[in-house]
Amino acid sequence: MSELKGACIIGQSGGPTAVINASALGVIRTALDTPCITRVLGAAHGIKGVLEDKLYDMDQEFAEELEYLKYTPSSALGSCRYKLADPEVDDTDYKRILEIFKKYDVRYFFYNGGNDSMDTCNKISKYMQGVGYECRIIGVPKTIDNDLNGTDHCPGFASAAKYIATSCAEIWQDAHVYDTGMVTIIEIMGRHAGWLAGSAALASLSGCGPDLVYLPETDFDMDQFIQDVTDTYKKNGNCIVAVSEGIHYADGTFVSEAKTSSTDGFGHAQLGGLATMLADIVKQKTGAKVRGIELSLLQRCGSHIASKTDIDEAFLAGKAAVEAAVSGTTDKMVAFECSRGVDGYTCKTVLQPLDIVANFEKKVPREWINAAGNGVEQPFIDYALPLIQGEPERPTENSLPRFVRLKKVLTCKD
Amino acid sequence: MSELKGACIIGQSGGPTAVINASALGVIRTALDTPCITRVLGAAHGIKGVLEDKLYDMDQEFAEELEYLKYTPSSALGSCRYKLADPEVDDTDYKRILEIFKKYDVRYFFYNGGNDSMDTCNKISKYMQGVGYECRIIGVPKTIDNDLNGTDHCPGFASAAKYIATSCAEIWQDAHVYDTGMVTIIEIMGRHAGWLAGSAALASLSGCGPDLVYLPETDFDMDQFIQDVTDTYKKNGNCIVAVSEGIHYADGTFVSEAKTSSTDGFGHAQLGGLATMLADIVKQKTGAKVRGIELSLLQRCGSHIASKTDIDEAFLAGKAAVEAAVSGTTDKMVAFECSRGVDGYTCKTVLQPLDIVANFEKKVPREWINAAGNGVEQPFIDYALPLIQGEPERPTENSLPRFVRLKKVLTCKD
Repeated sequence: MSELKGACIIGQSGGPTAVINASALGVIRTALDTPCITRVLGAAHGIKGVLEDKLYDMDQEFAEELEYLKYTPSSALGSCRYKLADPEVDDTDYKRILEIFKKYDVRYFFYNGGNDSMDTCNKISKYMQGVGYECRIIGVPKTIDNDLNGTDHCPGFASAAKYIATSCAEIWQDAHVYDTGMVTIIEIMGRHAGWLAGSAALASLSGCGPDLVYLPETDFDMDQFIQDVTDTYKKNGNCIVAVSEGIHYADGTFVSEAKTSSTDGFGHAQLGGLATMLADIVKQKTGAKVRGIELSLLQRCGSHIASKTDIDEAFLAGKAAVEAAVSGTTDKMVAFECSRGVDGYTCKTVLQPLDIVANFEKKVPREWINAAGNGVEQPFIDYALPLIQGEPERPTENSLPRFVRLKKVLTCKD
Repeated sequence: MSELKGACIIGQSGGPTAVINASALGVIRTALDTPCITRVLGAAHGIKGVLEDKLYDMDQEFAEELEYLKYTPSSALGSCRYKLADPEVDDTDYKRILEIFKKYDVRYFFYNGGNDSMDTCNKISKYMQGVGYECRIIGVPKTIDNDLNGTDHCPGFASAAKYIATSCAEIWQDAHVYDTGMVTIIEIMGRHAGWLAGSAALASLSGCGPDLVYLPETDFDMDQFIQDVTDTYKKNGNCIVAVSEGIHYADGTFVSEAKTSSTDGFGHAQLGGLATMLADIVKQKTGAKVRGIELSLLQRCGSHIASKTDIDEAFLAGKAAVEAAVSGTTDKMVAFECSRGVDGYTCKTVLQPLDIVANFEKKVPREWINAAGNGVEQPFIDYALPLIQGEPERPTENSLPRFVRLKKVLTCKD
């Protein structure tokens, strides 16, 4: 494969994670250090930045400042949720992307996101091949949900899992302070896969795990749930429940959207989230003191309790993307292949076809969930525990987070 | 003052904080090392443990294990919200306490809590003096709300403030990821005083502060609030609001409890908290994308992001209590006297009369809040910033919190 000289673009897409910027740094740092990559451009708000010719010149940033990307949550370049049209139906966007690629002689495109981002990569790649414009395109995965196919796990998941497990352990301490009982219901992200909700169970290694964990991989039964909570509460005088926002009844209806006996009788929609709603139902049915807690955005942006393993792997994924592209690869997504043997945990990057993630959400295997559907089994713990290891450096100023401060010099001002 | 030999009891009361156990350690460690204190007893669930003769023998704990108290949130001995009767009306409890004190030859009583705990100390002290039983009684303050009178600040506040400021900075990053705007409303604890809500503004030192901050020290006006949010949103394309759970209208009604235009028209009570309710109103009035986030229990039990200054001072308060008692003092609460001069921050312990906290909640001075009542001024920052400094050691196992594991050997089994 002959050396391909030209600029590269890195874009970020989809919802924030604690380590998506570590992947961006992996791309940017490696690209800046690669002679055949003549210029490194950061797309403002993902593919929208390409379409709008809003590109930051990453060569203008201070090298030391870029390092702070490792410890800054959310997407430092800005993100988007823009879906490209089918090029056979409407190729306007693709023509524009080609125009921009030509304008800056872009020969490398790295896109950092979830399923939709891999789809975007795939479509752009096919289009460029169709028009005969040589550009190597590699996807760098991210999602806290961990539901991407073709990879052992996904950068972003582990830090969210660590935030959740740590918070659950602390809530456990708080919820056991009085000798009067309490039911605590913790709502956790993950609409279709229970990786994050299951991670609450890691807190059991601190002796502070939830008593019950409900994942969207099994059907939810409200009566059984109330029975589970009542039984645990009677036995322990306390009950901590971790519940995925995506739990649903057997007919597929999300519990959070369903009308239940806790509506006010006029069928008005519930305000507040699932935790509040379940807390209300449990209170009505058991008379116990109940508290609903939604971990909300904090679980995906809580970089102060990130996993060092996650940060390092996220960086590695970005670096591997550039190295693969420079060595001639295109049309691939970086993925992880891991082993968790007697010799400990190892993780290496591999390359997967971009469409491996399409139309498939990786769920928690049924056998990793207990028979009753209210807890996870040891294989889940064995899978997730290595991923949350290690405390990052975590730079601070005034004991507050020191996030990256990019100059964001726009190329269109050239 | 002659040396007083005898046992001591340490009890914890009221809601959890991240560092109340550091104060307990300050008492326990110092008491164990003090020859005239013959036995150190921990009351299970505060004064209830005394009444029920449920006392843990702290001499039975491993010294190294006790050190973990510094990093364990909530009350390791258990807490209560038990209010002693007026002894002139009903002295049953007091007789029982005297009986227990005599049983174990208790000559020192340390109580770690908020206003009510100081009241408990005061009542017991007066009773013991009345019946001629010599026992030295010292209160050790704690509350995340920071509303105790007679002390510069209160152990527990700073760690909650740090959790809040750090979380707000991270939420800021998350909320600025898209180029489509968003309004984020963050609900913060503090029913009557705005110390915690104001602490959200510390995040501005990370460049990630809230645009608007509402404290319960000023009257809340819903129309003005909507105007503030709309103006900020129009100007910045984004708006982050920190709001105390205790905001209230001019007539004193809590906003969280008031009927508003966001009720469903049948006047049904809102489910969910204040953040959800305000988010709903802002959404209706502005059409913006809005998210409500309740920091909930996490802000008071998030020991993983505790302030080292807070931990050290909490320990110091416990230590000072024992030293004061041993040297002959009784009927006092440990308090802090601080200076924030050009030479930096210093903090020393002083002793205050127990009733100094009674019937007085220390509020944020009006002049520390801006004229519009939607932000805090520099003096607030200057006050709070030194308190959140320093990262504690934070012991972990498997990268998860390693909390204290007490044996809790009951003396009644003697």
